[in-house]
Amino acid sequence: MPGALTLAEIATRLGGRVAGDAGARVSQVGSLENAAAGEITFLVSPKHRAKLAGTRASAVILSKESEDLTTLPRIVCDSPSLYFARVSQLFNPLTSQPPGVHASAVLGKNVKLGEGASIGAGCVIGDGVTIGSGSCLYPRVVVYHGCALGERVIVHSGALIGADGFGGAQDEAGRWIKIPQIGVVRIGNDVEIGANTTIDRGALDDTVIEDGVKLDNQIQIGHNCRIGAHTAMAGCTGVAGSTRIGRHCAIGAAAQILGHLEIADRVQISSCTTISHSIRKPGTYTGLYPSSDNASWARYTAWVRHLDRLADRVRSLEKEKKK
Amino acid sequence: MPGALTLAEIATRLGGRVAGDAGARVSQVGSLENAAAGEITFLVSPKHRAKLAGTRASAVILSKESEDLTTLPRIVCDSPSLYFARVSQLFNPLTSQPPGVHASAVLGKNVKLGEGASIGAGCVIGDGVTIGSGSCLYPRVVVYHGCALGERVIVHSGALIGADGFGGAQDEAGRWIKIPQIGVVRIGNDVEIGANTTIDRGALDDTVIEDGVKLDNQIQIGHNCRIGAHTAMAGCTGVAGSTRIGRHCAIGAAAQILGHLEIADRVQISSCTTISHSIRKPGTYTGLYPSSDNASWARYTAWVRHLDRLADRVRSLEKEKKK
Amino acid sequence: MPGALTLAEIATRLGGRVAGDAGARVSQVGSLENAAAGEITFLVSPKHRAKLAGTRASAVILSKESEDLTTLPRIVCDSPSLYFARVSQLFNPLTSQPPGVHASAVLGKNVKLGEGASIGAGCVIGDGVTIGSGSCLYPRVVVYHGCALGERVIVHSGALIGADGFGGAQDEAGRWIKIPQIGVVRIGNDVEIGANTTIDRGALDDTVIEDGVKLDNQIQIGHNCRIGAHTAMAGCTGVAGSTRIGRHCAIGAAAQILGHLEIADRVQISSCTTISHSIRKPGTYTGLYPSSDNASWARYTAWVRHLDRLADRVRSLEKEKKK
Repeated sequence: MPGALTLAEIATRLGGRVAGDAGARVSQVGSLENAAAGEITFLVSPKHRAKLAGTRASAVILSKESEDLTTLPRIVCDSPSLYFARVSQLFNPLTSQPPGVHASAVLGKNVKLGEGASIGAGCVIGDGVTIGSGSCLYPRVVVYHGCALGERVIVHSGALIGADGFGGAQDEAGRWIKIPQIGVVRIGNDVEIGANTTIDRGALDDTVIEDGVKLDNQIQIGHNCRIGAHTAMAGCTGVAGSTRIGRHCAIGAAAQILGHLEIADRVQISSCTTISHSIRKPGTYTGLYPSSDNASWARYTAWVRHLDRLADRVRSLEKEKKK
Repeated sequence: MPGALTLAEIATRLGGRVAGDAGARVSQVGSLENAAAGEITFLVSPKHRAKLAGTRASAVILSKESEDLTTLPRIVCDSPSLYFARVSQLFNPLTSQPPGVHASAVLGKNVKLGEGASIGAGCVIGDGVTIGSGSCLYPRVVVYHGCALGERVIVHSGALIGADGFGGAQDEAGRWIKIPQIGVVRIGNDVEIGANTTIDRGALDDTVIEDGVKLDNQIQIGHNCRIGAHTAMAGCTGVAGSTRIGRHCAIGAAAQILGHLEIADRVQISSCTTISHSIRKPGTYTGLYPSSDNASWARYTAWVRHLDRLADRVRSLEKEKKK
Repeated sequence: MPGALTLAEIATRLGGRVAGDAGARVSQVGSLENAAAGEITFLVSPKHRAKLAGTRASAVILSKESEDLTTLPRIVCDSPSLYFARVSQLFNPLTSQPPGVHASAVLGKNVKLGEGASIGAGCVIGDGVTIGSGSCLYPRVVVYHGCALGERVIVHSGALIGADGFGGAQDEAGRWIKIPQIGVVRIGNDVEIGANTTIDRGALDDTVIEDGVKLDNQIQIGHNCRIGAHTAMAGCTGVAGSTRIGRHCAIGAAAQILGHLEIADRVQISSCTTISHSIRKPGTYTGLYPSSDNASWARYTAWVRHLDRLADRVRSLEKEKKK
């Protein structure tokens, strides 16, 4: 941590324009509600002006349209949340773990670790794994043999990279005969993988996570998927095997994407939506069934099962009318 | 374990009224179907009288309305399942792990452990973590730095407390710039956390789990959530960031609650329901899409996509009628 | 690995009929797209004939109907994917871990390990656990006390067997009183359990996974469930407590099956389907709510909440007509 910085020093490093006292010093970031003196906060939208009025922060990051909502020392910029992310990185390390391999970690044969890589307590790294420089694996990550992680990759605890995907063929008696999973997982640079997320190794070819992908917690990526660069997926989502997701996509929490699909670049999928067909065009896609108080739900949902018959009745009425 | 107890001894400790032989001795609990001699079972409802007739248990816990359904030695009480829970606690320890820190656990600096706390094999406890007295962390739990757990907290294997939440801002090129997650997780007393459940640390402020909360397995709690006291959540549920859930709520399995919502006290959410709006009133809320044999489902679901046009056709018919 | 084999040698071991050069040698399997020389691939369906035309594989497994689509050395058989699974098993070990107990694993008292069992790094095996011969537990699996695994069971990293299920009774003040979970998990032979999957121990009786069951990643099996032999469940599915699933079922990804249900043998449940009633007959069952571009979704979904009123309007029109 660099200690305190003045707003002028911050703007010199990160751009933006200072309004008010450019010598105001801050040493940490905080939320509008709970920032203390010596901290800098940010305003996403003028809608939160009431909270801004009550903040105890010493400085604020905001956009031009909000500039006059406060007399606090402030930095005016195009994207307050992006600017805030960068300011916070000045005051806070990106990861909380020192470089090196923890004594309790288990490394296989021929593991290659880049400079400054950090392997946390209880991690298990299989034979022939490559982990790029500056990457941080938090405690209890497992990487199966042969997988490759790029540089500056962050993997949170409990994540599993390269376990066998779900591959079997049924024999004559309906028993499952395992298909050995002989591909690996290849992960690009600047990827972040959340806690307890699982990424299956490829069945024959590889599973690929491209640069800059952000996966939240408890995500399941099936074998032979490819997740395009800079795509972000929120928690509890699932992607079934052999699906390819484009670049710069945003997948909402608990979305499910079925197998063998193609999702174009810049597609946004809403939370809790199931995608069962390929998507060829950018845009937002949704499939959320509405919830209500239980009685209302029961009333309208009862009709869902009879929709085809309701449609038949409408057709009969239309025919009748034409006579 | 206290060894065998007579029904009279149990009633002295836990209340209720003994009917039949108060000297009957039991030393373990069992189910109606599989209890053996020397075990005590319970009857939730008179509906199960047929199973009661066949039980080999030596005694039964039941309500007044069921008292005459058996001549077995029995304890009559208001809530047989609650009474049964308490009897089972007499015969069975609440956790299966001895106090102390397992030799294979890894503790950071300045960790504070309360009296009788039990830290299982392979646990990793970060710097500055506090764990209250009587708490039990089963093997392979990770608690990231700075988090605080109360007293008598049970955490099952694979649970992760305090990993980074999903926080980023997009830069001009659509790359994700990580927002350091500088809050922690604060967990109250008498909380139970299921296997492989993940609770993210706060982004700026803290994530809070209040007293008496019960979280089942594979739950994901996003950063800055607050879960109110004595709320129970069944497996596979997800709560996105900054949502506040009230006290004494019951959340069914695989429910998903979107971010930045407020859920009132005493709300019940049905299994597999997505909640996308705040809920201000106690009650039960549901949003389950019905399943059927595949052919029926295809028939009625095809009409869902045309509901607005079907409604238009009804409106046309109504207009026609008015002429 | 046995090194290279000729097609004739493969057919001698596994059946099928060789067409073309029976002396062609292969030493590994590969996909149609990416197989190299010296590898054998397979054709599931004549639909993929274009890919077949471009393959660099040295041999192909295919069905009689596809036999003439290529002049490559080939093996003709009834089920190419099943045959391929068996060929791949000739060239690739079923698991990637040597027999024995890794030095970093923690074994409780009275653990019984069968011949050739492999316990990976960081596994924690509770007191009194039995693990059958030839079973492989990958790193960081936890098996709680008393549970029993059969022979040739594969358990992937992060899986948890036998944690407490979600059992509590509410007291007068709405606090949850824990019901000790005194059953265990019993797992048959030839079962495979995916990464981060959790299987709860029984509350009073046991949770049972029968022979040949295949569970993918991040599955949650509640206490006292029974999963019938040779049933396969794809990733992210959940089965709530006390549900019994039959034999030879296939459960799609992210399906949710509520508690206390009975599912017959040979039932197929589609991905992302919620099952809230018992299923008595074999067949395919589905309950997927359709997704669309966001605007279309909003348009038709708005009508879902008014379906009962729409039905009333149709009824009014019908009454009117009859006058």
